[in-house]
Amino acid sequence: MDNNEIDQLVTAMAEKGRAAARKLAALSTAVKNDILLATAEQLKTQRDFIRTENEKDLAVGREKGLSPAMLDRLELSDKVIASMIQGLEEIAALPDPVGEVDDMKRRPSGITVGRMRVPLGVVGMIYESRPNVTIDAAALCLKAGNGVLLRGGSEAIHSNLALAGLLQKVLEAHAVPKEAVQVIPVTDRYGVNAMLAQEAFVDVIIPRGGEGLIRFVTENSSIPVLKHYKGVCHLYIDESGDIDKGVRIAMNSKTQRPGVCNALEGMLVHKAIAERFLPAAAKELLAAGVELLGCEQSCALVPEITPAADSDWGTEFLELKMVVKVVDDMDAAMAYIAQHGSQHTEVIVTESYVNSQRFLREVDASAVMINASSRFNDGGQFGLGAEIGISTTKLHAYGPMGLEELTTKKFIVYGQGEVRQ
Amino acid sequence: MDNNEIDQLVTAMAEKGRAAARKLAALSTAVKNDILLATAEQLKTQRDFIRTENEKDLAVGREKGLSPAMLDRLELSDKVIASMIQGLEEIAALPDPVGEVDDMKRRPSGITVGRMRVPLGVVGMIYESRPNVTIDAAALCLKAGNGVLLRGGSEAIHSNLALAGLLQKVLEAHAVPKEAVQVIPVTDRYGVNAMLAQEAFVDVIIPRGGEGLIRFVTENSSIPVLKHYKGVCHLYIDESGDIDKGVRIAMNSKTQRPGVCNALEGMLVHKAIAERFLPAAAKELLAAGVELLGCEQSCALVPEITPAADSDWGTEFLELKMVVKVVDDMDAAMAYIAQHGSQHTEVIVTESYVNSQRFLREVDASAVMINASSRFNDGGQFGLGAEIGISTTKLHAYGPMGLEELTTKKFIVYGQGEVRQ
Repeated sequence: MDNNEIDQLVTAMAEKGRAAARKLAALSTAVKNDILLATAEQLKTQRDFIRTENEKDLAVGREKGLSPAMLDRLELSDKVIASMIQGLEEIAALPDPVGEVDDMKRRPSGITVGRMRVPLGVVGMIYESRPNVTIDAAALCLKAGNGVLLRGGSEAIHSNLALAGLLQKVLEAHAVPKEAVQVIPVTDRYGVNAMLAQEAFVDVIIPRGGEGLIRFVTENSSIPVLKHYKGVCHLYIDESGDIDKGVRIAMNSKTQRPGVCNALEGMLVHKAIAERFLPAAAKELLAAGVELLGCEQSCALVPEITPAADSDWGTEFLELKMVVKVVDDMDAAMAYIAQHGSQHTEVIVTESYVNSQRFLREVDASAVMINASSRFNDGGQFGLGAEIGISTTKLHAYGPMGLEELTTKKFIVYGQGEVRQ
Repeated sequence: MDNNEIDQLVTAMAEKGRAAARKLAALSTAVKNDILLATAEQLKTQRDFIRTENEKDLAVGREKGLSPAMLDRLELSDKVIASMIQGLEEIAALPDPVGEVDDMKRRPSGITVGRMRVPLGVVGMIYESRPNVTIDAAALCLKAGNGVLLRGGSEAIHSNLALAGLLQKVLEAHAVPKEAVQVIPVTDRYGVNAMLAQEAFVDVIIPRGGEGLIRFVTENSSIPVLKHYKGVCHLYIDESGDIDKGVRIAMNSKTQRPGVCNALEGMLVHKAIAERFLPAAAKELLAAGVELLGCEQSCALVPEITPAADSDWGTEFLELKMVVKVVDDMDAAMAYIAQHGSQHTEVIVTESYVNSQRFLREVDASAVMINASSRFNDGGQFGLGAEIGISTTKLHAYGPMGLEELTTKKFIVYGQGEVRQ
């Protein structure tokens, strides 16, 4: 297909998706849950078919020389299929956000005004070669009453089409237009551009992947984008901080799963506690294999800390490596965070009421924490149920995005013939 | 200045605005209110200076041959100055949204999670030559703890700089960096482009003006845009509708202020009530000078209704003119609204519980009303206090945007040393 044909195909799909979304918005919770559970059933009975289609992608991937990590993410193993099934069951069990009404108030004019939660419309998902996202994202969008247009990495095309095909069969069996969930069958990179041009039919774009993909999407979309750049998370050990809590939180935040966005990338230590805290923390972190890059003072306190290069400050390492800096006071720590943080997760360890409240109020991040591991910044841990991503920009959603963030609120008015004076 | 110099100037301003916004975010409510009230005081005592600067703009405008309507909007008359003063006093009296915490819940892990309302950061306002917007918008942004970068129409440059200058004097007197409120002193159209490129320092762009301006901003911004396209509002008279309520609401919605976005542009009438409703409504509307363009059936029922052209359906007339269509049932009315509406305001007149609830749930618009005038879609009427615009897209805000819509919520976590298992 040339670009013109791709544009035509994607436009036709988006238009049908918009029409299907109107039907979805009016579906009862019971029908939506039935669809999710029937899809889980399909994943169980059609496992062989899914594996066969996935094997086609894996074979091409091996031929192309994809890295073992990429092949691993591409594979729909029994474990991954089981987690998709569990995800569908969990989303079916979550409360339906659509139709919730709040803030109903009588106004002086006589009308009663409130807000009703409604679906966004059509969600455009752009993601890398992780075919499980096809089911996870579609399930969340469906439960929130949205149509979804999916554009996964080209290496996963057979897997994605197979999974969406199962879902579409279930939709049709429930008298819902199958265009409610569509995978764009275009492996050419231009498929992304074509999707970003569907302003008339797509309400929001959610990109999941590396910083390059997300920048490309942001710069080329006139549709609003809910984006998650990167997680450069910090831990500030206050003068009054408890050493044990600090060490425990540093260890868990850095080492429990170093490759994810809510893992720690830097530690700021008040100068009055550095002499007691740093050696204790470094001992455990070094034993866990963490490489520590530090400022002059940190290196002087712990010989195993090596001098950090200028480019290390503010880096998202995503591995067992982090920077350490001794700061004069909390203001210096907060200024450092404002400069180097990515508005993802920032933590203070303190026993001071005053400092805890100042940090909470003044630090700008999607999650600001007192005496807790940065690893808690997660939809499940926060009680949102499943999440479709973590927003590090402030419009619409800031932090983990669950079902509610896939909806909006419209105003509703109950009148008895009132007119404006 | 050439484009390069404009880019440098605007970037420097945006960067300073970002730093000032950090200070603003931490200001107490009392100080913010003092600043607003002191600005109101300045407008009273500096009236002559404001009039002198405004006169410079008016003189250039007259020379350029601006239309009387444009000159009228450009003029800072005593009445307009009084309304700016009143606006400042009203915004000072509104509750401060910043710092509000809700949804605090204990999670199984032991942490307590909630959400705290925080400012967006820096707001970029782009608007036409109405200098009163400079004060109105700056006041709302300040109260919500945001810095603001203002780019008004070039015809109002002296007025805008004078007004912002007064505000900056007040800010400095309160030890707040004056860059919290800045007017871009560039009349070249490229000033808008330069502002739309400040993704690193500006969090949201709010354009106010005609559809052309808003499209230009949307297509050229990588910063999120809160936009208000147009208001093509409809009134559907249901089979069970009360004739008196219907006529009263049609008259008020269409004629109370025909040039604004929440005025009625089309009326859909159920065929079973058309014979009784249309002649009664047409009589009053025609007497008020409204030109009615209709479908074949409407024209047959009321001889004064003239046949509508294809291009009339879905048009935003903004004058005493509207379309009228007889429909077979409510589904046809809702399909028409989905096709021709602009997601602004849609009204049903009905005595049927079932139809009222279906319309409320299924119609997609920023405000959906039962038996009330479309003219109520307004921040003041809805109880939000002053409004900075009406969003007809669904991300972040849908409908009138008040102080709350100029903020976002971050997650906050209270822990006692918890780590993730």
